[in-house]
Amino acid sequence: MKLNIQTKDSNYPIVFNNSFQNLQVLFEEIRLVGNKICIITDDNVDPLYGDMLENELINISPRIIKYSITPGEEAKTLDTVHKIYSYCLSNQFDRQSVIVALGGGIVGDIAGFVAATYMRGIKFIQIPTTLLSQNDSSVGGKVGVNFQKYKNMIGAFYQPQLVYMNTSVLETLSDKEFASGMSEVIKHGLIRDRDFYNYLIDNANLIRAIDHDTISYMNHRSCSIKGDIVSKDEKEGSIRKYLNFGHTIGHAIETLSNFRYLHGEAVALGMIAACHISFQRNMLSKLELNSIVNTLKLYNLPVVLESLSSEDIYKQLFYDKKVSNNKIIFILLNGIGDCVEANDVRKEEILEGIEFIKRGA
Amino acid sequence: MKLNIQTKDSNYPIVFNNSFQNLQVLFEEIRLVGNKICIITDDNVDPLYGDMLENELINISPRIIKYSITPGEEAKTLDTVHKIYSYCLSNQFDRQSVIVALGGGIVGDIAGFVAATYMRGIKFIQIPTTLLSQNDSSVGGKVGVNFQKYKNMIGAFYQPQLVYMNTSVLETLSDKEFASGMSEVIKHGLIRDRDFYNYLIDNANLIRAIDHDTISYMNHRSCSIKGDIVSKDEKEGSIRKYLNFGHTIGHAIETLSNFRYLHGEAVALGMIAACHISFQRNMLSKLELNSIVNTLKLYNLPVVLESLSSEDIYKQLFYDKKVSNNKIIFILLNGIGDCVEANDVRKEEILEGIEFIKRGA
Repeated sequence: MKLNIQTKDSNYPIVFNNSFQNLQVLFEEIRLVGNKICIITDDNVDPLYGDMLENELINISPRIIKYSITPGEEAKTLDTVHKIYSYCLSNQFDRQSVIVALGGGIVGDIAGFVAATYMRGIKFIQIPTTLLSQNDSSVGGKVGVNFQKYKNMIGAFYQPQLVYMNTSVLETLSDKEFASGMSEVIKHGLIRDRDFYNYLIDNANLIRAIDHDTISYMNHRSCSIKGDIVSKDEKEGSIRKYLNFGHTIGHAIETLSNFRYLHGEAVALGMIAACHISFQRNMLSKLELNSIVNTLKLYNLPVVLESLSSEDIYKQLFYDKKVSNNKIIFILLNGIGDCVEANDVRKEEILEGIEFIKRGA
Repeated sequence: MKLNIQTKDSNYPIVFNNSFQNLQVLFEEIRLVGNKICIITDDNVDPLYGDMLENELINISPRIIKYSITPGEEAKTLDTVHKIYSYCLSNQFDRQSVIVALGGGIVGDIAGFVAATYMRGIKFIQIPTTLLSQNDSSVGGKVGVNFQKYKNMIGAFYQPQLVYMNTSVLETLSDKEFASGMSEVIKHGLIRDRDFYNYLIDNANLIRAIDHDTISYMNHRSCSIKGDIVSKDEKEGSIRKYLNFGHTIGHAIETLSNFRYLHGEAVALGMIAACHISFQRNMLSKLELNSIVNTLKLYNLPVVLESLSSEDIYKQLFYDKKVSNNKIIFILLNGIGDCVEANDVRKEEILEGIEFIKRGA
């Protein structure tokens, strides 16, 4: 299965498969044969899939090097980026060389920023290995790192040449990580596609059992929704903001919990809070609100926020790229499958939304 | 006078004037009124033009801040970039904020890279204050910094919203800096426009006296040549390489001399060496070679290379982004006004070219 993503100045395929086996052919198709390759991965993913990937690429590259980072958000810094620059330079990487990201969102974001800025930009392949990165960060070209206490503060929009999604790697994910990925999948249904949202409820058993055909189909639909939005608005001038549904409060929870909540978990809580605000504004029915909470539960996502203060979360909202002229931007649901941007959400509404998830939705 | 630069996903004006006076109107035209502005400049330019610029912008921005760097190539590092990130963050700069570069090429390159990567890219205005940056780095969107011993190794292609060229600021340039800028102007004639090259010979007196109308006309023609190339090939896949004429050996001289030679001076020497190679290949007549050397002399550019070893220069050529699969790329002249790319220049030809400038062209 294949999906094409078209932005203003690039066009690349997302390929869905259940192994790494056709990678060589794909590299030939996008004319990346004969170039040096640097695989950027982390110490969790490398022992599982590092050699497997290298073996697939060995015939098409004269030199493959690998840089493995310490797993986790702490590595997502400019310091790591500089170390990779040095590593590539000491291996005489030039403008024709290729960066391959093998890992989750953190690896992809770091590797993408290196690719975007090394010699003013070199070629870049995404091989996301988590359900989250397959449905979120690997599609759309946002790359970057954290800076001081600010998440994704330094970065670029930089599209890859290819995104390769091997669903078989999802088998080694923890339940918590799988759930985290489902949060973004459910989000795509909620903001744009009620049928897809219902599909996720109807097929929960197959999805949770990681049935490859079902997951490939799900990823394809989920990435289509994101890809369609990104094609229309790569730089987040308008509808791309919809993808931030759940992320306003979600990011604050993620940061304040010191990443104890995984990204998708924090987003699930953020989505419920945003749904509560939507419900209070009569944009979402009680029935829909309950359905959303139950669907998140169905996929083992948290629906109760523990031990953070509402005021702290509120304050944290201002430390975000999404703040514009000191106004906090929210995405609210207008029924399931539709959403709108709102910059007029009052402090009390926000605090009530947070209280709702603290009480237990 | 105005010139429009069109790339794949941007379109911006270069405005030629002899004061800062219409800046406010221009900011209104490109809808940048009401946003925070950070002026990035250096300690040489700031006392001369910092306040003048701030006064022009004061009515259209709620907050103007300024970051002044130590002049010179040493500041062109990621460390400087990080300090500016921090400064912008501590002043609550958001996605709507604007970076204004006021200075020469170093200031523009640093400021542009900050703009390209802060929050994945914010708006950017170039106000080049040297003849060199007016005719070279401010047009075309190449931004970035040096890394370790590598020039412009980390960077991006990032187009500004506006380039504003005030010719009156050229009056405070030293003769050496003025000459350095003329080197790139002459280059544009040599690679693409024989008539313009002849214009530069015929009008040398007015140009050297910084006659504003003549300089504005010259800048307009020079930037048209560069702009036309950049419009056709923003990312240097093909004809943009022509702009590297003189830069292969020029960059090596610049680096090995520890920037004792100004950029344009080193490029002048690099152009003569490349012309010698072109002459040896019967692509350039003896008459043309002599004319080029004389024109560079006419504008007080060096035509004799002092105290660097040919072998050292040759070795340095490999530490360059322009090296592709270990082959050094040269741009050679095919008569005055036309050029070609060559990746088959032999070591002996290169050494002979360097010897030619060492002997004194």
